[in-house]
Amino acid sequence: MSITLNSPLDMHLHLRDGEMLSTVAPLSAKTFSGAIVMPNLVPPVDTKEALLAYKERIGLAIGDETFKPYMTLFFKPTYTKEFLESVRDELTAIKLYPAGITTNSEGGVAGFDVKELRPTLTAMSELNIPLCVHGETNGFVMDREAEFVSIYEMLATNFPKLKIIMEHITTKESVEALDRFENLYATITLHHLLITLDDVAGGMLQPHLFCKPIAKRPEDREALRKVAFEAHPKVMFGSDSAPHPQHAKESSGCAAGVFTAPIAIQVLTELFVEHSTIENLQAFLSGNAQSIYSNISVPNKRIILEKEPYIVPTKYGEVVPLYAGESINYTIKEIES
Amino acid sequence: MSITLNSPLDMHLHLRDGEMLSTVAPLSAKTFSGAIVMPNLVPPVDTKEALLAYKERIGLAIGDETFKPYMTLFFKPTYTKEFLESVRDELTAIKLYPAGITTNSEGGVAGFDVKELRPTLTAMSELNIPLCVHGETNGFVMDREAEFVSIYEMLATNFPKLKIIMEHITTKESVEALDRFENLYATITLHHLLITLDDVAGGMLQPHLFCKPIAKRPEDREALRKVAFEAHPKVMFGSDSAPHPQHAKESSGCAAGVFTAPIAIQVLTELFVEHSTIENLQAFLSGNAQSIYSNISVPNKRIILEKEPYIVPTKYGEVVPLYAGESINYTIKEIES
Repeated sequence: MSITLNSPLDMHLHLRDGEMLSTVAPLSAKTFSGAIVMPNLVPPVDTKEALLAYKERIGLAIGDETFKPYMTLFFKPTYTKEFLESVRDELTAIKLYPAGITTNSEGGVAGFDVKELRPTLTAMSELNIPLCVHGETNGFVMDREAEFVSIYEMLATNFPKLKIIMEHITTKESVEALDRFENLYATITLHHLLITLDDVAGGMLQPHLFCKPIAKRPEDREALRKVAFEAHPKVMFGSDSAPHPQHAKESSGCAAGVFTAPIAIQVLTELFVEHSTIENLQAFLSGNAQSIYSNISVPNKRIILEKEPYIVPTKYGEVVPLYAGESINYTIKEIES
Repeated sequence: MSITLNSPLDMHLHLRDGEMLSTVAPLSAKTFSGAIVMPNLVPPVDTKEALLAYKERIGLAIGDETFKPYMTLFFKPTYTKEFLESVRDELTAIKLYPAGITTNSEGGVAGFDVKELRPTLTAMSELNIPLCVHGETNGFVMDREAEFVSIYEMLATNFPKLKIIMEHITTKESVEALDRFENLYATITLHHLLITLDDVAGGMLQPHLFCKPIAKRPEDREALRKVAFEAHPKVMFGSDSAPHPQHAKESSGCAAGVFTAPIAIQVLTELFVEHSTIENLQAFLSGNAQSIYSNISVPNKRIILEKEPYIVPTKYGEVVPLYAGESINYTIKEIES
């Protein structure tokens, strides 16, 4: 029996720049119809010029009209309504990072002062620009996301017309927040559906499974699985696929990120089949995102998979993917666009 | 002002074997008067012959009469009273590992069936041989030690004359158990007084800080600090210094262990001075252990430290120590024996 998925979308993706961009962008472009592209380059993408130039570099790296990079700006509270209007047609969302919380986030928001944030967030509400948020405080690593829920609530309450996407959620607290506020949405990664902290640090320490937010407890994974497998209308797939060269992972200070882009669709298929919810994968992987991001255009693409072992490459360029060298159970047999 | 410490003891130490033994044993022998030597070699030290041969190899590696290796056997429920009597003079304690819980522990105890354990543990009680325990279940990595407390309680209750050492405790639950049972004792490492999971995985992932049991939450560290700094009579220093070559740490599957032996005394001094409890370090580092292990002979050694920066070597052989290449604040100026 083959499984067909239409126009998969990756609503949280790191494409990096330069050589890494050339390595990873075609891998996403091959199987996805589009992806929300994160702006945490060095320096961050925070001007119209930088955004357009990055979009052009992505286009050159991909050379494929069947994939849309949905561009984002790195949130700054100094963005004016005039500026946002001028860039509106080029961008899909704005990504907010708390300062210093993950890779290249040093220039992020240092406090969450509503008064300071109000002009930009009000303009975003009026222009219907979604706010994507990396929701972690600088507290203890296992508590950061749960602690951030109060900030989500503050944002959701103060800006009720702003679409707020809780990115790569990892906790039951975030899942619970989804239903409390109409304007809160979430992306969920593949790896957070698969692993807990036990997989990262319960046996040998596994740097290739180290990411931010760090994988949490079994009950957190259960909460994520529940809303993903039922394709809760407020959740959508975002891989947070985040490539680092092998030497930056297997090192005395290992960078955060799991690289899943080339195998995400296959492994999601396996996972949803295993949990007898394959009929919901289309919504999780595309439909929900199209409803939430009402303003995106989505190229047609049809992915046909079969249950057939596929050996994951040990590396893509210098990047070690999830399940490197291991066998996964679904193979992409055809891609039509 | 100089600080003098007499006959420091390391009540939990991994000396390994072969080349690694030659690298690390002299480092401990230089500054400590003795150490409980862990038996988790491959194969484990579980016969009198293996124990004597290992003791001899340690002696050759050290070539120093001012350091006593306190030998241990790898616990097996098949040890008879006759066997234990025959080996009594050669060993200081027996170390129990739950099966598969840490480096080279595959042959450990798979269940905790009192009936199965009773003959050996009763014989140990009668012969006054302490039982050292790696207290972790195979549960979720952050819960393993707290879950194991019920097994400590079962052992303490069923074998009230057996001295049970909770090794390298990392949680407030273990600290609390200390005062509930007369025959429970504990070792505490240097690194668990210093770090929490935040230091391991809160920023970049730090493989050289990865150990088992994994460092826990800030409130756990506080509980450990409290009993260490007050030199609670039932706790003693055990470094759990556990060398692995650099390539086994900075790797796609990083081995568990922090190497602290050559700097432990200096950093403990700094830590106790910082917390205005330097007057308790002698007891934590030697006196308590001598009371708890009533049967050990302790060579005289006098360590004189001064507050003077010391740059920690980046490596000892192939082993990267804690604080590699960094400056610590106390230096050993003289060692008299």
